Amino acid sequence: VSQRQRKSPYPMITVAEAVNIVAEHSNILSPIKVPVDENLIGMVLAEDVVARQPVPGYRASILDGYSVIANDGPGVYPVIGVSIANTSHLSTNKLQPGQIARITTGGPVPPGATAVVMVEDTTLVRASEDGLQEESVEIHVQVSDGANIREIGSDTSIGTIVARKGELFSAVGGEIGVLASVGVKEVCVYRRPVFGVLSTGNEVIDHKSTSELKYGQIFDSNRPTLLAIAKATGFEVKDFGIVSDDAKELEKRLKEALTQVDVLVSTGGVSMGELDLFKPTLQQSLGATIHFGRVKMKPGKPTTFATLPGTAGAPEKLIFGLPGNPASATVTFYLFVLPALRKLAGYENWNSPILQAELMDKISLDPRPEYHRAVISFDHSKGKFMATSTGHQISSRMLSLRNCNSLLKLPERTDQCKELDKGSVVDVILIGKLNKTLQPSLKSKM
Amino acid sequence: VSQRQRKSPYPMITVAEAVNIVAEHSNILSPIKVPVDENLIGMVLAEDVVARQPVPGYRASILDGYSVIANDGPGVYPVIGVSIANTSHLSTNKLQPGQIARITTGGPVPPGATAVVMVEDTTLVRASEDGLQEESVEIHVQVSDGANIREIGSDTSIGTIVARKGELFSAVGGEIGVLASVGVKEVCVYRRPVFGVLSTGNEVIDHKSTSELKYGQIFDSNRPTLLAIAKATGFEVKDFGIVSDDAKELEKRLKEALTQVDVLVSTGGVSMGELDLFKPTLQQSLGATIHFGRVKMKPGKPTTFATLPGTAGAPEKLIFGLPGNPASATVTFYLFVLPALRKLAGYENWNSPILQAELMDKISLDPRPEYHRAVISFDHSKGKFMATSTGHQISSRMLSLRNCNSLLKLPERTDQCKELDKGSVVDVILIGKLNKTLQPSLKSKM
Ligand SMILES: [Mg+2]
Ligand SMILES: [Mg+2]
Repeated sequence: VSQRQRKSPYPMITVAEAVNIVAEHSNILSPIKVPVDENLIGMVLAEDVVARQPVPGYRASILDGYSVIANDGPGVYPVIGVSIANTSHLSTNKLQPGQIARITTGGPVPPGATAVVMVEDTTLVRASEDGLQEESVEIHVQVSDGANIREIGSDTSIGTIVARKGELFSAVGGEIGVLASVGVKEVCVYRRPVFGVLSTGNEVIDHKSTSELKYGQIFDSNRPTLLAIAKATGFEVKDFGIVSDDAKELEKRLKEALTQVDVLVSTGGVSMGELDLFKPTLQQSLGATIHFGRVKMKPGKPTTFATLPGTAGAPEKLIFGLPGNPASATVTFYLFVLPALRKLAGYENWNSPILQAELMDKISLDPRPEYHRAVISFDHSKGKFMATSTGHQISSRMLSLRNCNSLLKLPERTDQCKELDKGSVVDVILIGKLNKTLQPSLKSKM
Repeated sequence: VSQRQRKSPYPMITVAEAVNIVAEHSNILSPIKVPVDENLIGMVLAEDVVARQPVPGYRASILDGYSVIANDGPGVYPVIGVSIANTSHLSTNKLQPGQIARITTGGPVPPGATAVVMVEDTTLVRASEDGLQEESVEIHVQVSDGANIREIGSDTSIGTIVARKGELFSAVGGEIGVLASVGVKEVCVYRRPVFGVLSTGNEVIDHKSTSELKYGQIFDSNRPTLLAIAKATGFEVKDFGIVSDDAKELEKRLKEALTQVDVLVSTGGVSMGELDLFKPTLQQSLGATIHFGRVKMKPGKPTTFATLPGTAGAPEKLIFGLPGNPASATVTFYLFVLPALRKLAGYENWNSPILQAELMDKISLDPRPEYHRAVISFDHSKGKFMATSTGHQISSRMLSLRNCNSLLKLPERTDQCKELDKGSVVDVILIGKLNKTLQPSLKSKM
């Protein structure tokens, strides 16, 4: 056992400084071509996309009815054909004055026809002897030219920009449907970063392990949480397991992991204990550059960020050493890692949204700026967002993240201000969904 | 070609009636046991979950420092051992008065110790001759009993309910971390429905097809959109492709699909054209019960809902026939299908959230209640949600869903009220995320 360091060699920087340093090293990845399908969700376009097909591609009926020449006006007319949404049965005969033709919703309006009359505005006058064919039909209304016809390109004309560079494919799905409808089969998007997750610590046991915890051991909650966030955000993640506090082992596992990812996220091993090997291993064995190793925040003080030059033209690798305490790991992931992943993936709005919310209860301040786990809901009567703490905020207490959708940005304690009163308005970083807290009738359940 | 039906045999019901009918048939599925991992996101607990382990499971140090007996007070003490977060090196020696022991963050406090002093409040007095061992250290401060120690179960005591029946695993990931931390390896959740998607129509061509569209053909945008929504919501989906307007083929494909899913979603074929075979096939060939076949809404009038009894104790199958026009299919999916999927999966809040928002521009009303595609953003200065239309709302225009995050519930037109003025407040169904429209600085970009 060697002598211990008594103070950290890393200067304490602010969260804003740390976020900026990470952002400087988070350079948008190169565009790749991908098919237009559901995997586009969460990706960002690297090009403007133009309609390759007009929609509709032919003069299409808006409803079920009869193609007519509007000028002919009301009256009884022979039914000369059918234009159903079925290319194998299409009549290419031109409609002549005094004729009408059946048509279905979306079907192609025959040449010569100038309008469509809806079936409800007609009656059958004569059927064929076997009762199967309509022979003549009465048109009851006068329609104007163009009525109930979607002209070629009236929804989307060919050449229209249907999606712009920088646009994000939303979970609503509309953007993907738009591209499909205009015949776009592939698009250029920014490559999404692949990130890796590992936990460090001799005391850390996989939560799925069936053996009982021994004295001094704890279950790993960081990897399951970070893997869950990854799945929810759609970023590809690789699980590199748990690494013991052994310098050689850590070096080997970090090197292995770094060949497979753009961003590596490790938890634990970043404090000043003698088994906190993450920083020395990065610097001495991997040759990484440590950009910061301490941040003035609670939780998350020992958060560490380093980079390793990419080889063979590959982009720089980002390495995050997050604290091992579960609330610290999760909070710093949301503050530093997720924005970096979004920025690498080309998001214009790579930072999490910030709201203002009113405190439902008073909160004591900490000497460090605190990122306080909370639930934000919208008070429809006040027109304001309201914040409720998730309770005791010690960084080891994973329960502080149960039902949490936001982090309150609390200022550091001063002699003048030791707590924030109920009703105070604070900045809030939204990390989850507001959805379930938006329904007025649900407010009482929160 | 046979004579056409001139009016629908299905009574026109309201959206509220239709939602209720679907809800009545959407019965929560049976619970299943699943492992605690990232796949829990979006699932609903079917049981209360109790902590199987206390956290911490041993008396743990909050920081790096020295375990002491608080009563001993400041002074120089021999360092008798190390309690690092590493079970193989644990000393089980009881700390005696006048002794101290090194300890790292999270490490087990040795028996006999009553507090931990942080390393910054100490100085090294004497090291071993080789300089590698600390022999005595001066403690500068008086600490009280219990200082910097997390007692057993102080974060979570054994037996605490850490998650309740009905709780949803959020995308924030905290709930999964909580379960991992207290040693829960499996939980009972409600089984999530599997749903299938198919498109119908002779004119409908897969959007990935490389051949040019022929006259009268259109690209299928419905399946890509519904598959995207499925992926984003996390519900398992099966793609049953495109089915031609052929009664035998449709019957075969529907039967096939229904053996594999809980919910089947078909688009197209529900109007009154002669090739609209969906309803007759369901009733006559599959023996399904059609609960409604017309809804008073725009878009989505011909929306159809049917059920088929489950065989061998399996739950009833739900069958949705959505209109083929792309905006209609997407809107009715959000209004009728997604809530049903959520209800089957055990969501307490299975309906989409409803907000009130102010119109940014005037909007003309339709004779039918309209579900108008829009973007909702939060105006921080007004404390109000604001609604902007996505433009022309014809049901064939997929572009009306680009960047859309919500559906405005517009009332039907009356003689008294033909349009809603700018500034009117309307109910809004949130179908997407507010996140990107929440940042004050981004408002101008919307
Ligand atoms: Mg450690
Ligand atoms: Mg059809």
